[in-house]
Amino acid sequence: MPIAEFDAIARYFTQAFPKRADVILGIGDDAALSSVPSGMQLAIAIDTLVEGVHFPKGTHSENIGYKALAVNLSDLAAMGATPAWMTLALTCKKMDEVWLTGFSQGLLELATRYNVSLIGGDTTCGALTVTIQVTGFVPPHSALRRSGAQVGDGIYVTGTLGDAGLGLASMQKRVVLPRKVQRFVESRLNRPTPRLVEGKALRQCANSAIDISDGLVADLGHILRASGVGASLQVDRLPLSKALREVMFPEKAWQMALSAGDDYELCFTVPPNRVAKLQNALPQDIYTHIGIIEATPGLRCLDTNGQLFVPENRGYQHFV
Amino acid sequence: MPIAEFDAIARYFTQAFPKRADVILGIGDDAALSSVPSGMQLAIAIDTLVEGVHFPKGTHSENIGYKALAVNLSDLAAMGATPAWMTLALTCKKMDEVWLTGFSQGLLELATRYNVSLIGGDTTCGALTVTIQVTGFVPPHSALRRSGAQVGDGIYVTGTLGDAGLGLASMQKRVVLPRKVQRFVESRLNRPTPRLVEGKALRQCANSAIDISDGLVADLGHILRASGVGASLQVDRLPLSKALREVMFPEKAWQMALSAGDDYELCFTVPPNRVAKLQNALPQDIYTHIGIIEATPGLRCLDTNGQLFVPENRGYQHFV
Repeated sequence: MPIAEFDAIARYFTQAFPKRADVILGIGDDAALSSVPSGMQLAIAIDTLVEGVHFPKGTHSENIGYKALAVNLSDLAAMGATPAWMTLALTCKKMDEVWLTGFSQGLLELATRYNVSLIGGDTTCGALTVTIQVTGFVPPHSALRRSGAQVGDGIYVTGTLGDAGLGLASMQKRVVLPRKVQRFVESRLNRPTPRLVEGKALRQCANSAIDISDGLVADLGHILRASGVGASLQVDRLPLSKALREVMFPEKAWQMALSAGDDYELCFTVPPNRVAKLQNALPQDIYTHIGIIEATPGLRCLDTNGQLFVPENRGYQHFV
Repeated sequence: MPIAEFDAIARYFTQAFPKRADVILGIGDDAALSSVPSGMQLAIAIDTLVEGVHFPKGTHSENIGYKALAVNLSDLAAMGATPAWMTLALTCKKMDEVWLTGFSQGLLELATRYNVSLIGGDTTCGALTVTIQVTGFVPPHSALRRSGAQVGDGIYVTGTLGDAGLGLASMQKRVVLPRKVQRFVESRLNRPTPRLVEGKALRQCANSAIDISDGLVADLGHILRASGVGASLQVDRLPLSKALREVMFPEKAWQMALSAGDDYELCFTVPPNRVAKLQNALPQDIYTHIGIIEATPGLRCLDTNGQLFVPENRGYQHFV
């Protein structure tokens, strides 16, 4: 099915996308027009997924569509922002109806869940590359930043870590897993849940936040550098899923939790005097206290005996 | 020069980018934060350039950087919007310092001229693909749309048409041109001037507008379809540059002006009772009256004798 222009594609697959009152003019003109709620600031994030780099060849297009939006929503979650609109730049070899149907369904699933309008885009011919930009709203002076961590803050993460890393190993046939574990970890890789609700709730208590896309060590490292602080982590506190614990020895699981990316959980820091607020803001089974912000630069991971535990690598890096 | 993350690249080449008071937090966090002038609406456009599709392999990276922003600013111009911020998704095989320096210089030149901040981005590894999204401001109810053309409107274009098409033929060595002509038409291809000033001025008089990226016939066709009208054009009124007239017979030049893309001029329609306003809004040597909007659907191109003149093709189409 050759298609000439984005608006043709968009009409084909976006009928069902959420309509928002703040979108004045959507797809089909030179630019989209939208309005911003009075007093709100904008949070803007852009992320690209490249076939063979961010997802293996052969990934179902529904998962690609889902994930391309999920990673962007995760960025807004890490700022405490509420998503509103997205634009899509889709580059692919050819426009295949089956592929597009799956892609749009994945995109639509998440867009519907979080009320995100698709307001514009561009389709081009080339190697499969998906870029989404999302725009969201956040009240002035309330966005969560990487740079706000203070000495004495507790370090927390949402959910469990390392699942997506094991999911990637499974998809790449580097491990063979029990069917139930496989389904769970591959779904964690392909269908991460952006922590939008949690990010918004954290605005009232966290000093800093980031989403974990490149691995805890790498992403917490961004907070430490941006805030000019250091940290200690206790690896035996790292939250591990039942699935991960079922198939990995603790030391291997900790490595996975520290270094594997793609979990899209939030890592955040909370000062001691706002822990009560945190307990009010989020159910306690959603987050785990894993360490503390310290003045000494660098990140120290400590094992059960208080000995240094050295992460095997420091997260995924492009072009390296 | 391997580079790990966009913020590293951004810091390397974006020091000189315009700083705007409405950018609260730029590159380096999960999302950028910005504020919108009270009462303004947003105009949002996204465009991708793919090597080998939108520019020939071997195009100087400075021209790629320039053009990637220019085509997006042209979209805002066609809406009558004023640009404010951009995000950049850059996919390339490797990060080469010389290539990046050129790319950033081209981008910077245009960003500086129109006071556009680079507020975020993503770099990924893959086939050379550049996606830019721009956000601009426009007062409520004043944006120019494709859908506003009325029967009786005059049809106008800014500048001259067909130059970029001849420039592409020259770059692809399909024609050999006198040096001066070559320089001019290749510069029209590689360095289009987004008609931002003109677009803004047209808000007070035009019923509809579009930028000419795919060729006049194709892009005016978008206005006609969106407005539910037809049109007649007089091909001998098509504005041709001295360079084009110097090397092409009229009939070939008209074909080029009708069908070649990449000129990034504006095509717009003005009702008879606002022609005086148009004359006040824009210097007369900037635009040309080329036809009229009619009730009968379709586009009729007429030659000097009033005979039908058939355009050779209907503009560039992806995936066809």
